[in-house]
Order: sequence, then structure tokens, then C-alpha cells
Amino acid sequence: MRKILSLAAVLTSALALSAGAEGTLTAAQSDPKALGWMQGFPPPADKIITQPDSVYFSFPKLRWSVCHLREFLPTEDISRGLGAPVPLPRLSAEDLAVERRIIDILSFRPLGGGRVMTVGEAFDLNYTDGLLILHRGEVVYERYAGCLDEGGKHAAMSMTKSLTGLLAEILVVEGALDDRALVSSIIPEVADSAFGSATVREVMDMTTGIQYSEDYSDPNADIWIYSQAASPLPKPAGYVGPEGYWEYLTQVQPEGDHGAQFHYKTVNSDMLGWIISRVSGQPVTDLAADRIWSKMGAEQAAYMTVDGTGVPFAGGGLTAGLRDLGRLGLLMLNNGEINGAQLFPAEVVQNIRAGGDPEKFAGFPTLPGASYKSQWWVMHNENGAYAARGVHGQTIYVDPAAEMVLVRFASHPQAKNGVIDPTSLPAYQAIADYLIDR
Amino acid sequence: MRKILSLAAVLTSALALSAGAEGTLTAAQSDPKALGWMQGFPPPADKIITQPDSVYFSFPKLRWSVCHLREFLPTEDISRGLGAPVPLPRLSAEDLAVERRIIDILSFRPLGGGRVMTVGEAFDLNYTDGLLILHRGEVVYERYAGCLDEGGKHAAMSMTKSLTGLLAEILVVEGALDDRALVSSIIPEVADSAFGSATVREVMDMTTGIQYSEDYSDPNADIWIYSQAASPLPKPAGYVGPEGYWEYLTQVQPEGDHGAQFHYKTVNSDMLGWIISRVSGQPVTDLAADRIWSKMGAEQAAYMTVDGTGVPFAGGGLTAGLRDLGRLGLLMLNNGEINGAQLFPAEVVQNIRAGGDPEKFAGFPTLPGASYKSQWWVMHNENGAYAARGVHGQTIYVDPAAEMVLVRFASHPQAKNGVIDPTSLPAYQAIADYLIDR
Repeated sequence: MRKILSLAAVLTSALALSAGAEGTLTAAQSDPKALGWMQGFPPPADKIITQPDSVYFSFPKLRWSVCHLREFLPTEDISRGLGAPVPLPRLSAEDLAVERRIIDILSFRPLGGGRVMTVGEAFDLNYTDGLLILHRGEVVYERYAGCLDEGGKHAAMSMTKSLTGLLAEILVVEGALDDRALVSSIIPEVADSAFGSATVREVMDMTTGIQYSEDYSDPNADIWIYSQAASPLPKPAGYVGPEGYWEYLTQVQPEGDHGAQFHYKTVNSDMLGWIISRVSGQPVTDLAADRIWSKMGAEQAAYMTVDGTGVPFAGGGLTAGLRDLGRLGLLMLNNGEINGAQLFPAEVVQNIRAGGDPEKFAGFPTLPGASYKSQWWVMHNENGAYAARGVHGQTIYVDPAAEMVLVRFASHPQAKNGVIDPTSLPAYQAIADYLIDR
Repeated sequence: MRKILSLAAVLTSALALSAGAEGTLTAAQSDPKALGWMQGFPPPADKIITQPDSVYFSFPKLRWSVCHLREFLPTEDISRGLGAPVPLPRLSAEDLAVERRIIDILSFRPLGGGRVMTVGEAFDLNYTDGLLILHRGEVVYERYAGCLDEGGKHAAMSMTKSLTGLLAEILVVEGALDDRALVSSIIPEVADSAFGSATVREVMDMTTGIQYSEDYSDPNADIWIYSQAASPLPKPAGYVGPEGYWEYLTQVQPEGDHGAQFHYKTVNSDMLGWIISRVSGQPVTDLAADRIWSKMGAEQAAYMTVDGTGVPFAGGGLTAGLRDLGRLGLLMLNNGEINGAQLFPAEVVQNIRAGGDPEKFAGFPTLPGASYKSQWWVMHNENGAYAARGVHGQTIYVDPAAEMVLVRFASHPQAKNGVIDPTSLPAYQAIADYLIDR
């Protein structure tokens, strides 16, 4: 059997499998329609994208695959329910065209310097597949490229964590989950794991002291063991490793002290998924559907990839429509309210916005002074912005001062936000600056 | 690598992998909730349902899995679009309760004799997961059991063929597909296959003369080769067989004459899927979405399983909501019209209803005098009934005289309609008889 790489290996790392491909093709050159992936019945042999994920998630194929993960992997529905979607308020087509012209020529200087560029240039430069901007709850900009359109869906990758964290924070505020409790008091199975002695809050904020290496050059790195465990495909004969996300979590070794420092390690998000599943009695998918997706007027069901035991990948498995993540962003901007309904207490958003301790945050040069709270990135900037972030440049960027929600799907060849941020974060700020005066 | 059985092996055969389990557990005893499958976080080890399909699709596990195929397999969306669903007209809750009491005690004598039983008894006896009855376009009966509820979806299995056949008949009536053309004139790749010399119509009506054995006791039977080809999972090292449904179809050998006799062989449906994909320029999923799902007021997106090259399983891969198949049935009953819109010409339904040649039909003792036309089973009975049928007892049963659409999802332990029909077809007739006088 060929070696099966789990998506976890790709989605959770700051290093891309495709890193070597950087710079080879521009967004236009790597456009999946232009490259002809999966067109024709059948497509030409060299245009068919297949397993394993070291193939289908390599650049430039990944520019097609980010919209088609369910065609490669077992998945679980996040139901939108059976009711009518609630359309997002939006400018007229004419006014949208005007705003697009304005926004596309807003200019900014990249982080770390370099020549001034425009938002429109950054759209292409960063392999953007969809960009939705809501101002005061109204769509002022909506643009698709690559594999995406308004009826499609796109891999959210590590933005999944922020959905998981939001659900956890809801349970905390509602009193169903004590964030000061030891994880072992909720999940006794991890009593002998490094997670056992951590608090729920340390898991939520990723300040656990756990060993989890993502060194791809080391064949014994934890990421490979985790990836094998998480693969939903049948295990190779003789496989003796852990089965699924959760069994892996029972075996995690300690490294450093809990609570001392923020360490971005995806296993925390899956630990959190386990915690909120046991506390709520629902898989993360159903919990997300019940609390959010079926109540926010979503246009499309979302979905999550699952492991071989049916556990949704709480750390990176979400795929959703651009507009529906816009609705999620509006829920955050408006303190849990959407379409006149309060879906969760305002305190949930206030807790997240307040952020964690920036003193414990390090290792992300493009996010100076930031923190990570309940699986959201909090900028601690003047505007009070905070964000969900995915490793190929995806974001839900909420800017309260600008009353802006910006959602971006992207398929950058490098799975490395440190490379993408210099030409995207200042673009978001430029847009916020414009909207404040709009 | 363990041997991976494709769903095709299960879904397309008149023999169940689970045949040996017959009679072991009743519907109540095998209820997936009662058996506790996949409950808990994690479920107890003996309650987890996993790959391969020889496990997850064995009885009684299949009673859970029929609602959860996407959690095991790569799939492709059949979009409902982004608009509002159109609710099915329905009786008041009070009147529904009255009708349920009436319909559940309607009685009938099973085909071939035996004691008189009621519709309510047959519901349980046949492992029904959902039963929806529409009379004159209005829901008069709706009941769920097993793994299904109104927000869930269920494997349609061979009812998929009827969706594929409907799409083909639409293309024929609209002039985009010539059903007298040789298949090789549309798909040159099958020129050397037995399909090459068949007409499109012979494929549509399954009167092709092709070799395709489903003898499970023969390790060299075609079904095994087809199953391996169709598996979406990575192929075992050294695999040299065909890749995907379509490559298999290029290698089919002749057996008998085209047009002489009806032979129920699923490969015809996949051949038809290939034909309509090439003619329309769309995969069957997108074609179904564009022509039907996004225009009939569907409540839920449906989906289809795919092979390792991304080709939807046109012969058995559909999973959908019960009510949405009710909408499909209404479209048939009302000659292509639903919610005031004509989705396709009335001639499409008229062609299907007219049926094929019953003289060519044999091998189905429970369907005397029937025929198979454009992948629909035509009863040639007094009421002019016709049906889509799935191998575990699923049906869309359209009775024009009774102005009835009956949709049933089921998970009978035996994948064998010959076993299920004696206590289901006369139940449908008893319901029709009642509705005619209602």
C-alpha cells in the first residue's frame, strides 16, 4: 500500500508539502480552470487529480482540490437545516461595481517594506479564491477566482479551529464547560497523556506544554504518527499506531509547563473537539449545526473531514461557502446576533476579543503584540481586530472599529502565513481605513 | 492492504453480502439507535463502524451506514442551489395523524400468498427507514425510523439509475442525445467493448448483450473486477486492473445479441452516465443539480459517491433526503412540472411511463408483465404505475391513477427485492386503492 498522508499533515503545518513549488506559477498561471484539471469526460490522463494527498494537495493541483476535498475524503455534514436561507444585505450591482473599483485600488506598503501595492494586486499575488467584505452588515465587495464561485465551498483548514473554539467558549459562558477544570476530569482517557494535567483553558488558548513536532524532515516526527492515525483510509497491514485523532491524544508526552507559553499545535484543537463533544453529547459537526449553521440563515451546508473512526477533524477539517463564513463573521462582529436572533451570549465574543496574554505569544513575526484566545488570533491593534486564519491564506478578519467582516479563501502555494501576511494583513487594514470613512 | 470491496459490489447485486444474516434480527432488534452504533465520544470499541465496506455495509451495521455513506467514502455534491426550499404541501398535523391511523391498518395479502398483513406491519417487517406518501401533491403520510429523520439523507442505491435514466431521457427528448445512435459514435473509447455496437436506447433500457457476471462465489467474476476498479481508495501495490468505472466499460465483452432481452446489469447505467456526461459536458451530479435539484425546491443537497478518478457512480451512488425524492416523484407524476415550473418536457415522462417491451423482460418473478424503460421499472398494471427501485427495498413508486407518489427508504438485511417485494408491492397497491377513493 502506498503511504497515505493525512490531510492533517498538510493542513496543520507551517510548512507546505508544496513548498518547493513556490514562485513557479502565478495565480493566473496556476488557475485551475486554465490548467484544465478534471475537465472532460474523462479528463486527459495528465489532468486527472487523484489520491493520495501528496498528489492532490500539491501545488498547483491544490488550487483545484481546495474546492473539492469531499471528492477525496470521507466527510460529515454540518447541516444548514431545512428552512430558507436569509440573504445577506448587499449593495446594488451598480454600487458593488463602484466599491470594487475603489477597493481594488486602495494601496498599502507590505509588512517589512517593499513597494506599495494595491488591494487588487494583492488579490492575485496571494492566490485569492474568494473575497467577501461586509461593512455594517452589508456586502460591499464579493469576488471569486480559481476554483470558487458563490455556490461552491472551499477548505477553511485552520479556520476550523476558530469554529471549534467558538463552540467551546459558548459552552464555557453558558456554564456547561468549566474552563478551569483539568482535562483529565472531563476526558479520563487522557489522564496519562500530557493533556491530562492541563486545564481546558490552556487547551483553548494553546498554552499547553505538550510534545508535538512538525519537522517534516524527521520520519519519526509526531506529525507523521498523527497523520497516519488520522487517515480515514484503511490502515496498512501491520499498522500498530493509534487509530484516529483521539487515541493519538491519549499518548501525547509533556514538553515544558502548561500555561507558560503559547505554542501553535493543532492537537490542542482536536483535544478541544473531544472535550466539547463529550460535554455536549454531540460531534463537533452537529454541535456547529445546532448552535450556528442551522440558525444563521446559511445558504449551504458545510462539512468536515473525518478520521477512520468518524471523528470530525476539529483542527482543520471544515469546508464551507464564502458567504456562510461571512455570516459567521457577522455573528462575531455583532456579539452573537444575526437576523434579529441572539444565537449565543455577547460575553462569548467579548471573551474572545479581549484576547490572551501577548507576553506568552511568540514565534509569529507578522503578528507582533498579538495573542491567541479560544482558537482566535487577536491582533491587539487600535481597531480591536481579531481573526480566524487558515494556512493557505484563508481568513475571517473581524474589525470592530471599521464595522468590517472580511472573509478570504485562498490557495497560496506556500502553506505559510508568515509568507502571506506581509501582503495581506496591511491590505485588510487599508480596507478597514477606507470603510471607517465610508 | 486489506481487500477493499467497492460499494458497487453491494449496491448493484441481487445478492447481499449480508444475506447470511437474514432473519437474525427484526427491525426493532436491529434499530441502529437501539444497538448504539457510533454513540458516545468515542463510542465503545464494539460500537464503532469503520472501513472496509464488508464491515460497514454488513447487516445490522448497514442500518446505520445507509444514512452515513459520506462518512466512509469520497462523494460529490448535487447542489440544491442557494434559494429557498419550497415546502411540500401537507395535511395538518391532526389530519396527518388520522391518515396515518387509516393507512397503517390497510391490509393486503402478500404476493404468493401467506397471511393478510397491514401496511403498518409491513413497515417494520421490511426494515423501513422512511415512508412518504403524497396524494394529489400533498403529504398525507410521513414517517421515519432507523437512522433516518426529516433532516437526514439515505442511500438510494439503484434508484440512482432512474435519476440517470431520467436525465438521459430529457436529453433525448430535447434532441441533444440520439437514442438510436451507436454508443461508439458518442464514446469512441468503447468501440472495442461490447457497448460499442449497442445503441444508446439499448443501454437506457438495459437490453444490451454484454458479459457481466455477479456470481459472488467466483473470484474471477466481473463484479469483483468492477468493484476494484470503482474503489475510490488507493489501489493496492501492483494493481493492474482498470481504473474507475469508465476504463472498466472499455473492456466489456459481448454476450448474446443487443436488443434481444432485458438484463439487469448496473454497468449499463454507468455507461449511460458516461454518455450523458460527454453529451451535456457535465458530470451526472452537476447535470442533476442544474436540471432538477436546484429547480424543484429541494430542501437538501443530495450527493453521489465517486470512483478514484472523480466519476460519480451513476448506477448506485445517490444519497438524498426522503422529501426531495418525493419532489422527484411529483415531477414524474405531473409530467415534468413542479411548483408551477415545467422543468422538462411532458414527453419525457410519457416515454418512460409507456414502458419497454414486456416480452423482453424476465427474471423478476415479483414483477410479472413489467418492463424496464429508461432505467425505470414500469409495472404495466391497471394504474399505470412505475418505479425507481433500490436493492434494500428503496422505492419511488408513482401511481398515476391514484395520483400517488410513494417514497420509501429501507435497509432490509437482504439486498434482494425478490424477497422484499411480496410484502411491499401489494402494500403500495392497497394504499393506492385507498387513495383513489379518498
